[in-house]
Amino acid sequence: MKKISILGSTGSIGTASLKIISQFPDRFKVVGLAAGKNIERLRQQIQLFQPDVVSVDGMATAGALRDLVASLPKAVNVLCDEEGIQAVATHPEADLVIAAMVGSLGLVPTLAAIRSGKEVALANKEVLVVGGRILMQEASARGIPVIPIDSEHSAIFQALQGHRKEDLSRIILTASGGPFLKLDPKEASKITPEVALSHPVWEMGEKVSIDSATMMNKGLEVIEARRLFDVPSERIEVVIHPQSIIHSMVEYRDGSTIAQMSVPDMRIPISYALAYPERIANGVPSLRLAIVGELTFMEPDLNRFPALRLAYQALREEESMCAVLNGANEAAVEAFLHRRLSFSEIPSVVERVMACHDPHTYSDIDEALEVNAWAYRLANEFLSAQ
Amino acid sequence: MKKISILGSTGSIGTASLKIISQFPDRFKVVGLAAGKNIERLRQQIQLFQPDVVSVDGMATAGALRDLVASLPKAVNVLCDEEGIQAVATHPEADLVIAAMVGSLGLVPTLAAIRSGKEVALANKEVLVVGGRILMQEASARGIPVIPIDSEHSAIFQALQGHRKEDLSRIILTASGGPFLKLDPKEASKITPEVALSHPVWEMGEKVSIDSATMMNKGLEVIEARRLFDVPSERIEVVIHPQSIIHSMVEYRDGSTIAQMSVPDMRIPISYALAYPERIANGVPSLRLAIVGELTFMEPDLNRFPALRLAYQALREEESMCAVLNGANEAAVEAFLHRRLSFSEIPSVVERVMACHDPHTYSDIDEALEVNAWAYRLANEFLSAQ
Repeated sequence: MKKISILGSTGSIGTASLKIISQFPDRFKVVGLAAGKNIERLRQQIQLFQPDVVSVDGMATAGALRDLVASLPKAVNVLCDEEGIQAVATHPEADLVIAAMVGSLGLVPTLAAIRSGKEVALANKEVLVVGGRILMQEASARGIPVIPIDSEHSAIFQALQGHRKEDLSRIILTASGGPFLKLDPKEASKITPEVALSHPVWEMGEKVSIDSATMMNKGLEVIEARRLFDVPSERIEVVIHPQSIIHSMVEYRDGSTIAQMSVPDMRIPISYALAYPERIANGVPSLRLAIVGELTFMEPDLNRFPALRLAYQALREEESMCAVLNGANEAAVEAFLHRRLSFSEIPSVVERVMACHDPHTYSDIDEALEVNAWAYRLANEFLSAQ
Repeated sequence: MKKISILGSTGSIGTASLKIISQFPDRFKVVGLAAGKNIERLRQQIQLFQPDVVSVDGMATAGALRDLVASLPKAVNVLCDEEGIQAVATHPEADLVIAAMVGSLGLVPTLAAIRSGKEVALANKEVLVVGGRILMQEASARGIPVIPIDSEHSAIFQALQGHRKEDLSRIILTASGGPFLKLDPKEASKITPEVALSHPVWEMGEKVSIDSATMMNKGLEVIEARRLFDVPSERIEVVIHPQSIIHSMVEYRDGSTIAQMSVPDMRIPISYALAYPERIANGVPSLRLAIVGELTFMEPDLNRFPALRLAYQALREEESMCAVLNGANEAAVEAFLHRRLSFSEIPSVVERVMACHDPHTYSDIDEALEVNAWAYRLANEFLSAQ
């Protein structure tokens, strides 16, 4: 029986994880759940999974949740904020912590989970982009696996199993290319949030949808791959693959490439992370390549997608530049969603903020978060001055 | 230092293996070589690799070879026929035996290698099709890996590394479809040996080229996969993939498919088998999917390729039917190459011979070889009677 805590249990990854967990009651037991303010959904989760401890955002929310769960037959310890998240992330019985909180707030509890010896399933981009080196060093020092829940990084993780790290020559991340793959670059300034939010393959949140359209998402994934697999950026490549069937690949020194493929379905990386190193029957249909018919590939155009170029540039500099890229991008995407910035200016804002930063290596995670917050603030200053 | 014996050292796989071995003198040492009658090439190999023992076909050939190597600085033990092949296959110092002899003659020495505890790299189809069950049982009982050198089976072997056998749901063999993939079936009777010998991707011998054109080659590979990986035939599928970039795939129960890909180059499966579980820099260029552009897939048409249907039929019956399929096909392909049979009649001859056989399980390898020889003779009787 694997015991599990989930950070971000009411979000899309958290909810999908719980759905899979519910199908394997003999295999998994939920011991802790951390959410934000969606206490109605959290109450249902508490009723169904009977965790020991839960955490929400704010004392008032915690109070309201206590009222909601008072009538449940099994008591649950309702906590809040930092203390609560910490309690969920380091629950003494938890074997695996699913880190699916959105944003850089996930960093501290994820690090706490690793430091208390938990295996971590990671669905939070910012954690790796901002504090990935420190996090992976802590995990590695304790021999703790960090299993990615992104479809691309799960693919790489799977393609690395059973082969020697020393033999790895390249990581090839696939990218759908987003909705503007074939758009005339001159038209980019006219893209509205509504158009940018429609992604051809995956359904996802607003921030990720915009990042996917600018390909900043892929840039952040290159940084994630750099941290997760400790491979220098010049050995990480991106190839456009609009069908999103091959989720990523690893090439070895003998010219052999191992690829992981499936119909696009987040249940695969989630169930793989849950059951690793085993696999479970998650209900995902078989991939039928004869029905898919064709898989196509092309080089990404770095002129059309400057965000991807900026991510590689950040990786070539010291690690703090990656946090700057992330923080500035967060602010720029928010501004675009609120119609305060045009689509084509998102990377320009990121580039301006990067130019103001003197890159360095962090001494601790607080410094990483400070740099990220500084970049977010500076981008907003630029945006207000416009 | 891995010490290696090669059965079939002057053939295409043997020669290619030695070329790779020659590039890694610190890693590999050749201790035995068995060939047929090409003593000029064997003499060069002896001079370069200085094996302890070699074997050739016939006492006269052995005598001629002894004269050729008399002036070499290092003495070599020249033997012949069964005794010689046996000595090469079971050389006390050999760690790995590359079984690359053509035809069912390879069965007995390959089995001898396994019984004397050698790891086996297998490039001989007939060994698995005719005697695969017995061979794999002997290997499994001794915990000896049998590493395939066929590109398809090497791909499957690689895609199985690091994942649990219990989680496997399907093996998907890719097939180029051969030169007649899009030919009107009515035209098949007009196909000449010259046309059938031109394969779009791989260069190979005459027998394999014809088997590739009828897709009997893929049928034999389905049988090989059944034996090598102990997966029932209903879980082994074939998909047409004309570009031959994905060499085969394994699907797991969570809907995840692991594929092995590369530019088509036999150095990959050979070097993988040589260095397993490591990988060596064999000089094969990187796969550039953006340059390849597209990979296409379609279902094989069993009406157009009855040989593939016959192979599945043989697998559904007892194991001896697979030897019958193989023996009858050998005779039919020979007859086609000598213009005594039309291309479209190759599977018909196989089917007629299969209809005359009462399938059963073998008690030993001699019985397997007898059934194979019986089918070969009966096919020839049918052919003479035509």
